[in-house]
Amino acid sequence: MTINHAFRLASRPVGLPKRENWKFTTEEPVGEPGDGEVLVRVLYVSLDPAMRGWMNDARSYIPPVGIGEVMRALAIGTVEVSRDPGFAVGDHVSGLLGVQEYAIVQPAGLVKIDPTLAPLPVYLGALGMPGLSAYFGLLDIGRPEPGQTVVVSGAAGAVGQLVGQIAKLEGARVVGIAGGPEKCRYVVEELGFDAAIDYKNEHVASALREHCPRGIDVYFDNVGGEILDAALAQLARRARVVICGAISQYNATEGVRGPANYLSLIVQHASMTGFIVTDYAKRFDEARQAMAGWFATGELSSREHVVDGLETFPETLLKLFTGEHDGKLVIRVASD
Amino acid sequence: MTINHAFRLASRPVGLPKRENWKFTTEEPVGEPGDGEVLVRVLYVSLDPAMRGWMNDARSYIPPVGIGEVMRALAIGTVEVSRDPGFAVGDHVSGLLGVQEYAIVQPAGLVKIDPTLAPLPVYLGALGMPGLSAYFGLLDIGRPEPGQTVVVSGAAGAVGQLVGQIAKLEGARVVGIAGGPEKCRYVVEELGFDAAIDYKNEHVASALREHCPRGIDVYFDNVGGEILDAALAQLARRARVVICGAISQYNATEGVRGPANYLSLIVQHASMTGFIVTDYAKRFDEARQAMAGWFATGELSSREHVVDGLETFPETLLKLFTGEHDGKLVIRVASD
Repeated sequence: MTINHAFRLASRPVGLPKRENWKFTTEEPVGEPGDGEVLVRVLYVSLDPAMRGWMNDARSYIPPVGIGEVMRALAIGTVEVSRDPGFAVGDHVSGLLGVQEYAIVQPAGLVKIDPTLAPLPVYLGALGMPGLSAYFGLLDIGRPEPGQTVVVSGAAGAVGQLVGQIAKLEGARVVGIAGGPEKCRYVVEELGFDAAIDYKNEHVASALREHCPRGIDVYFDNVGGEILDAALAQLARRARVVICGAISQYNATEGVRGPANYLSLIVQHASMTGFIVTDYAKRFDEARQAMAGWFATGELSSREHVVDGLETFPETLLKLFTGEHDGKLVIRVASD
Repeated sequence: MTINHAFRLASRPVGLPKRENWKFTTEEPVGEPGDGEVLVRVLYVSLDPAMRGWMNDARSYIPPVGIGEVMRALAIGTVEVSRDPGFAVGDHVSGLLGVQEYAIVQPAGLVKIDPTLAPLPVYLGALGMPGLSAYFGLLDIGRPEPGQTVVVSGAAGAVGQLVGQIAKLEGARVVGIAGGPEKCRYVVEELGFDAAIDYKNEHVASALREHCPRGIDVYFDNVGGEILDAALAQLARRARVVICGAISQYNATEGVRGPANYLSLIVQHASMTGFIVTDYAKRFDEARQAMAGWFATGELSSREHVVDGLETFPETLLKLFTGEHDGKLVIRVASD
């Protein structure tokens, strides 16, 4: 009898999630898939900032994870048992498999992936939800025009690294904001951003004035807080601010810090628009084709930060908030 | 020799402007207009929240009023001396005449008005900049559809009273937020809003949940602060938030309070957009015609709060921030 290992939510965290907020179950047998269900063995689990929100008991775009439930997570795996004609044993799939070794799921939530086209973790990054977020957030909301200035925060992260590259493909000038000299080097030297600002060692507002003398036309925000305020102070006329995330605020224990400089929107006739990537579900095929095409030609690249071992989940998750990761953060649960 | 009385900026205020921030000059002779200039005798001075921003030494859409300069203000007057062929003595005009009795101005900044179509103060309200702000902010940015829910703050103020009525003309359901039972009565009983929330006596967030059970499709904000946050918490999918002003924040001495609930923009795929009415200068004729038409048929009404006496300016200005005024606030400087 195969045993499943899983992380279940034990209690709702205040501030940063701690190991005591989780229950690591190590004795539950893997069940049998029912008719029309599929048993998937998990290979890689995606760690995403959105997971922090799912742990709160709050009204949002998706119900919170219940106490005692396996933590929700996007993941990649292989089909071990299929009771659905659309899936065969050995198929590689992605979907909401959870932070666990085995998942029994409805096939409607699964997408088949081709492991010969890209390494599996890329399907949780550039060819997964972060890629779709970058694509729609930038192109549908940000709408950069050639020669315009695009600034992206979390520039070396899962979404940011793609936003900047897509903006370059659109002919924009791109400035990334990232933490530390290595990440700044990466986005400029390896990804081709025009400039990078190291928020840990530079004054972001001054650096934005220097790098964006004609103002910011598109600001793609993954972080919120002081950096969002600095960008708002430097907007160009009719700028578009894309609110993709606010990782600096997700563990705030004294309430979210709102952007005090929001009145720049008045002065610059600018807009600030948020989105959830699943809002674009009907256009996912279009985006996946475009991203896969750029990836195949080498116009788009990405890096993934792979940590071994499901049992590291509580600590690995925290890397999202400390920034101790490079690119898309995933846990390798098992080898293919 | 005619003497001009004028309010000049003596010092930049911290918080609410006080009388000591002004110098009331009472001994300066009225000059002679030069070639191509016009001398206007001021009849009504408009008091607008934007004036508070013009007093700060800050980068904005228009330079600040300099220390020692006559305070900038929209006003209405009659031409006393014209050295421009386009204007005749006795013409009624509106423009940036300043807080004073007489102004010598370039005619390019003047608009002729017809005193037989509406009382003069209306040209500083419904048929002036507040009317244009309501028109473009609501119709170009808010874009309400029939049956949608529009919420407007500062609902009994110069702009808000018009926003709600235009929204009703567009077929929307309209909820106003105003301070005190009399203003709430006014917008519901006299202007035809569907409901009003008295922010001084009700819990705004609860009242919005009650009055907007399907969420807010368009939120037109004139006030900022807690009320903006309450509205953000109740947005409908793809809501449009129009940032017209933030009167609760203009005298803040400890920095503007940013909207902590801005992450609702993500969850609801909503947008928040600001504007300055002069961005729409090329379309002013269209708006003036529409507003004048609605005004003539009685589909649009407004009230103006007229205070007598230029010398009351420092105290009358404060009514904008305390809410001790009903509708468009103006000072009558002289009778026609």
